[in-house]
Amino acid sequence: MKKITATEYDLHLGDATEGLASWLAERQYSGVFAIVDAEVNNHWKPLLSRWKHQFHTQQFIAPFGEKRKSLKTCQSIWKWLMEQGADRNALVLNIGGGVVGDMGGFCAATFKRGIPFVQIPTTLLAQVDASLGGKLGVNFNQIKNNIGLFKNPKTVLIDPQFFKTLPKRELHSGFAEVTKHALIADKELWNKLLKINDLQKIDWLALLPKIIEVKNKIVKKDPFEKADRKALNFGHTVGHGLESAFMNSKNNLLHGEAVAIGMICESYLSHKYLDLPKGELEEIVNFINRFFDKRKISATRIKKACELVKHDKKNDGGKVNYSLISRIGAYSINHHLTKVDLEESLNYYNLM
Amino acid sequence: MKKITATEYDLHLGDATEGLASWLAERQYSGVFAIVDAEVNNHWKPLLSRWKHQFHTQQFIAPFGEKRKSLKTCQSIWKWLMEQGADRNALVLNIGGGVVGDMGGFCAATFKRGIPFVQIPTTLLAQVDASLGGKLGVNFNQIKNNIGLFKNPKTVLIDPQFFKTLPKRELHSGFAEVTKHALIADKELWNKLLKINDLQKIDWLALLPKIIEVKNKIVKKDPFEKADRKALNFGHTVGHGLESAFMNSKNNLLHGEAVAIGMICESYLSHKYLDLPKGELEEIVNFINRFFDKRKISATRIKKACELVKHDKKNDGGKVNYSLISRIGAYSINHHLTKVDLEESLNYYNLM
Repeated sequence: MKKITATEYDLHLGDATEGLASWLAERQYSGVFAIVDAEVNNHWKPLLSRWKHQFHTQQFIAPFGEKRKSLKTCQSIWKWLMEQGADRNALVLNIGGGVVGDMGGFCAATFKRGIPFVQIPTTLLAQVDASLGGKLGVNFNQIKNNIGLFKNPKTVLIDPQFFKTLPKRELHSGFAEVTKHALIADKELWNKLLKINDLQKIDWLALLPKIIEVKNKIVKKDPFEKADRKALNFGHTVGHGLESAFMNSKNNLLHGEAVAIGMICESYLSHKYLDLPKGELEEIVNFINRFFDKRKISATRIKKACELVKHDKKNDGGKVNYSLISRIGAYSINHHLTKVDLEESLNYYNLM
Repeated sequence: MKKITATEYDLHLGDATEGLASWLAERQYSGVFAIVDAEVNNHWKPLLSRWKHQFHTQQFIAPFGEKRKSLKTCQSIWKWLMEQGADRNALVLNIGGGVVGDMGGFCAATFKRGIPFVQIPTTLLAQVDASLGGKLGVNFNQIKNNIGLFKNPKTVLIDPQFFKTLPKRELHSGFAEVTKHALIADKELWNKLLKINDLQKIDWLALLPKIIEVKNKIVKKDPFEKADRKALNFGHTVGHGLESAFMNSKNNLLHGEAVAIGMICESYLSHKYLDLPKGELEEIVNFINRFFDKRKISATRIKKACELVKHDKKNDGGKVNYSLISRIGAYSINHHLTKVDLEESLNYYNLM
């Protein structure tokens, strides 16, 4: 079990069963209440029932997903915590992807004005991004993560064995955030990534610490996103707009899929405004296209995305705020761009 | 304008118009969004429109009250903030009683993961209690303040001129918390209070700092209610149970009215278990009865209150946790008492 120190807590990398057992053995809680993604529960029943027996864990099992990352689901979770008799000394355990972590964490952080929680992220996306840095929340009024807060978990247990049952599409979605971490702050990591062709064949236990370190470093420098942390939003201004624009459609975009498109668009804007070299722009586009199928963004969707980015959390004074890169591995924050820029960048994506 | 330093922020005591103008003049926000209680708006129109003009304040005006301190109202507030274009650099201004402060503060603290807010409490209760110490939240599933968090405002502007239009019942309700502050930690303040017969004739600007100081001292010692801060819940275990039990009835109890009854009950339990002297118990009962009309608590309501205290936030391991007093001015926390104790204390109240 490898330990990585984050701002106020430790991450544990390795076997989650062992990690959870030893972590809980050193602590006393009045109860351990697990919120489990239904897919994870289906695939990992024997593992979870071993945990359940060991820790007397009550479980809230639900099919999660962006659509259910809502105040309505929060109300079910809060009611369940009340029915189970969870008090202020109880622990919430979030087992699943980013939705479970963000929403379960938000529920814990606001239940009886806040009870402790632990993240056990089971997707690549959650392990390298969502579970780190204390961002919690739910979607509201069509805007992603519109309601939430910053609060760190007691610990995060990272175990790549869960990837074995992760659908290919989900694994690739998570890889978008891996790509982003390299692009904004780690050229060396980027060069490593360039050699990857098959995500199923990666030695995750060796690679994950390097990826996690990029995020940890930035979050430590600026926990509440006043400045540098905005760098992590590279690809996300356009990405969130697209994700929201596709949210209630049949052919929805996963978060990472939207961010992958967003990174192409924002690399284009980085080239346009920050002189990101043409060679690097092409390298990025080619790399992303290696892992993500092309999606056609219709004029209607472009219009909708333009409307939705107006509510982006980074905005100030009515201006849409982008985090770009001046080189691969070098971020540059606080660029105010126009609706025309956004349209142009989406047209660039459509044509690439 | 008198300044009192709290944990992370300053309280300003005096004329709120002057206080707000000078406080805002030193700062830059992208917008100031006021949430105003409808009663306050009715009574203080000229004052508020002076503020509005000066600060370009958009206002959310609503008839607040415990019943509307809900996630449903939060959703209206969040939507309104979105419609008004509030971004992360916006400021929320909560103008009203405890409901506006607790709920408006919660909405601000969770909107786009948290934007700053200022409290302008207009009731005695909010000025001496609710606006101090960073407790925010809403009622949920019949339990008071069940969902919320701790976060401090940027400042609190305390102006007793608002009491001029406060209904007598509200003023008395706030006086219950004043009484509590003295009972748990300030015998000298208690002796001052004993001389009071008419709440309309108090020099509040002179008295408020002493009352506020009691709470500030305790909150500084223990901001997240791990230990000493529980003292502030004296009268509140029974009080919250009663308040919830009466919540949807015609003859509802105001928060302070419920706490006043709660303090009689919990003084009785303090006498029973901690040897609070009989003379002091009687002094407390007589003093409270001087300001609060007698309410008959029916057997049905007693039963309901017993059920509801099971969800009290102070509870641990299924035990109901009381904060009592061993003497006037000396609190004693973490007493686990039974349902029989609660019933007995309510019967004592009914007979007094």
